[in-house]
Amino acid sequence: MTGNLLYAQSGGVTAVINASAAGVIAEARLQPERIGRVLAARNGILGVLRETLVDTASLLDPDLRRLRATPGGAFGSCRFDLDPEESNPAQYARLFAVLAAHDVRYFLYNGGNGSMETCRQVQAAADARGYALIVVGVPKTVDNDIVGTDCCPGYGSAAKYLATSVREVGLDLAAMTTNAGRAFVLEVMGRNAGWLAAACGLAAEDDSAAPHLILLPEVPFDEARFLERVRDTVARWGHCSVVVAEGLRRDDGQILSMQDRSQKGYVQLGGAGEVVAELIHRSLGYKVHYAVADYLQRSARHLASKTDTAQAFAVGKAAVRRALAGQPGVVGMKRLSDVPYRWRTNLLPFEAVANLERKLPPEFIAADGFGVTEAFRRWCRPLISGEDLPAFRDGLPDYLRLQLPLLPPALPAYGA
Amino acid sequence: MTGNLLYAQSGGVTAVINASAAGVIAEARLQPERIGRVLAARNGILGVLRETLVDTASLLDPDLRRLRATPGGAFGSCRFDLDPEESNPAQYARLFAVLAAHDVRYFLYNGGNGSMETCRQVQAAADARGYALIVVGVPKTVDNDIVGTDCCPGYGSAAKYLATSVREVGLDLAAMTTNAGRAFVLEVMGRNAGWLAAACGLAAEDDSAAPHLILLPEVPFDEARFLERVRDTVARWGHCSVVVAEGLRRDDGQILSMQDRSQKGYVQLGGAGEVVAELIHRSLGYKVHYAVADYLQRSARHLASKTDTAQAFAVGKAAVRRALAGQPGVVGMKRLSDVPYRWRTNLLPFEAVANLERKLPPEFIAADGFGVTEAFRRWCRPLISGEDLPAFRDGLPDYLRLQLPLLPPALPAYGA
Repeated sequence: MTGNLLYAQSGGVTAVINASAAGVIAEARLQPERIGRVLAARNGILGVLRETLVDTASLLDPDLRRLRATPGGAFGSCRFDLDPEESNPAQYARLFAVLAAHDVRYFLYNGGNGSMETCRQVQAAADARGYALIVVGVPKTVDNDIVGTDCCPGYGSAAKYLATSVREVGLDLAAMTTNAGRAFVLEVMGRNAGWLAAACGLAAEDDSAAPHLILLPEVPFDEARFLERVRDTVARWGHCSVVVAEGLRRDDGQILSMQDRSQKGYVQLGGAGEVVAELIHRSLGYKVHYAVADYLQRSARHLASKTDTAQAFAVGKAAVRRALAGQPGVVGMKRLSDVPYRWRTNLLPFEAVANLERKLPPEFIAADGFGVTEAFRRWCRPLISGEDLPAFRDGLPDYLRLQLPLLPPALPAYGA
Repeated sequence: MTGNLLYAQSGGVTAVINASAAGVIAEARLQPERIGRVLAARNGILGVLRETLVDTASLLDPDLRRLRATPGGAFGSCRFDLDPEESNPAQYARLFAVLAAHDVRYFLYNGGNGSMETCRQVQAAADARGYALIVVGVPKTVDNDIVGTDCCPGYGSAAKYLATSVREVGLDLAAMTTNAGRAFVLEVMGRNAGWLAAACGLAAEDDSAAPHLILLPEVPFDEARFLERVRDTVARWGHCSVVVAEGLRRDDGQILSMQDRSQKGYVQLGGAGEVVAELIHRSLGYKVHYAVADYLQRSARHLASKTDTAQAFAVGKAAVRRALAGQPGVVGMKRLSDVPYRWRTNLLPFEAVANLERKLPPEFIAADGFGVTEAFRRWCRPLISGEDLPAFRDGLPDYLRLQLPLLPPALPAYGA
């Protein structure tokens, strides 16, 4: 099948999602006889519906190398789910009108669980109406909560950044420790899955090192036991470093931050770090500081994992090869061995991935619920290994700020 | 004069204070005929009073190289001011008993404004009692608020980390922008001086790039004008990145965070970021995220400025040379030219530095009060230039965790 390829980015962006974009573009350019133009939509599936498309042909190799090393979503992302076709046929009519108008025969969607459902919907709708199209999902998420793949591009770099930050902050806290106990709390992302919080466990070389306690969303928060552990840690080391996932829940399943900050009616999920910090200060009287990494942890390309950038680039290339082979599905990552770390990409059926969520398995969570196991460390360590610095100019990373012109629309405007 | 040298660290630590320690030790070892032993006190002046001292002789060159690349205060810091001698003569009696017991003739104190006052007090007390001692202050602070020096070791690396983070987060935010406006707020350190917040201004290549607005403690917070600027920025670019210094004040001089969070009776100064984020959300309805860098910004050795680590090492070496030359005072940094950046160390009298605070001069603050001038950028740019990565092992910085044994005390225990 010959035609054009359309790539788009969706969901929360990462430090390496553009490396996947670079992989897609680089691989597609190797197949000029099969792929006419390599298009990209602005702001994901929304950009397809709105027909806000760009042609990547003008991206020269130096730009492509910079794109690979630039965080954020260079083509723009979105948080938008398609309706079921039966409830909104007009939406699908528009979608395929745009795809047909630009002779799109390969659609590669770079996103998380929800975006893989979009892939499934688009492929099913194409098959149903006999529109020749191959849809391939390109996974990305710092949360690593995609089912069926050993790991997900974006996670390794965020994990490396957070574990490094925890190690650094731990040394700072230790230096500031005198008579009074001190504690530090770092809030990291993770609504339902604690993969990022768990990764911070890689920072600790031994019991004395940060993080001393990790609060995972998979483990209901036991305030009394937690405070006892903080007190014991301070008694032993003089200070206590805590990592808390934003989605930490109480026994009743209520998210900690929501519970304690509901009166503010505030939208950001964050707040667990402040809540835990104030709990420690109020209950134990220690001097407490807290940090909220928020977007910093998913955009810290300056400390990207070399393994992660390589895998992000590889899934982009693999997606193009699957599309050309006429194989719809989601590109996954298969681990062949831990030490030495060896991996290859594979292909997962949409149904095995879409809208599912992968949490930390019990064997990765320490028996006391406040840390991770050696099995987790063995699994996670290779994912943060290696450094892949961006180019620096005037002391700062020289990132690409992509400004491709929109293609002239072939269809009337659409109100989505 | 021949005798032993005593080094100690004080105040909030930085990513490069240990580079100054390495400079002190390396330089002192070049003068074995003048300096017998190079001692260090645990937790600053408190360690001197408590006679918790270590001998750095067992630090081999590979350790010294790692020490230079390790954040935090490897010898432990403290926040402790000496009393005036007239009000607490016993404190000084103890202090000099410890110095005499270990034949300390050179005292190098690595700290900020308050620590330079300690230097002045100790030198004055030594002169008054005829105890042969030379005290030299080694400056360190991420706040860059030390008077009389062009810049202060510790600032350049924190500035580089924050400006990099703002640039990265700005790309993330831009990618997530669709129809509804979006804003992001980063809270950085700076109680009274906005040097760190100002440094974030280096991230913006043009008006469209983050940070769009910087809230400095030197500029009273005008809520209405600020919200208007946020609205205008979102209208123009679809999103708005804001940097706020923790010490942002209202017209009445009250610190924003304290005012809005006083009911919590919380100790950490932080909170300005959350207050500003909620203000934007409440007033303009935008989706808002905020991050609190807290200790991360002063311990991020992984992104240290090469200029900063070189200057931190240099002030340590210069302090030893001044001590041996019999010149008490505070080592400062003198700028010889901006482009190419050339500098050398100099010496400042204690009185010109101690307990004073250096704020952003008006010519560094943009006319509208929401940003910095080109004059500031020209001054700041060289300070963040160059990368000086630590060694990495298993994907994480391989930092030194110093464990030197305490010297057997020569005096009875002291209750400080």
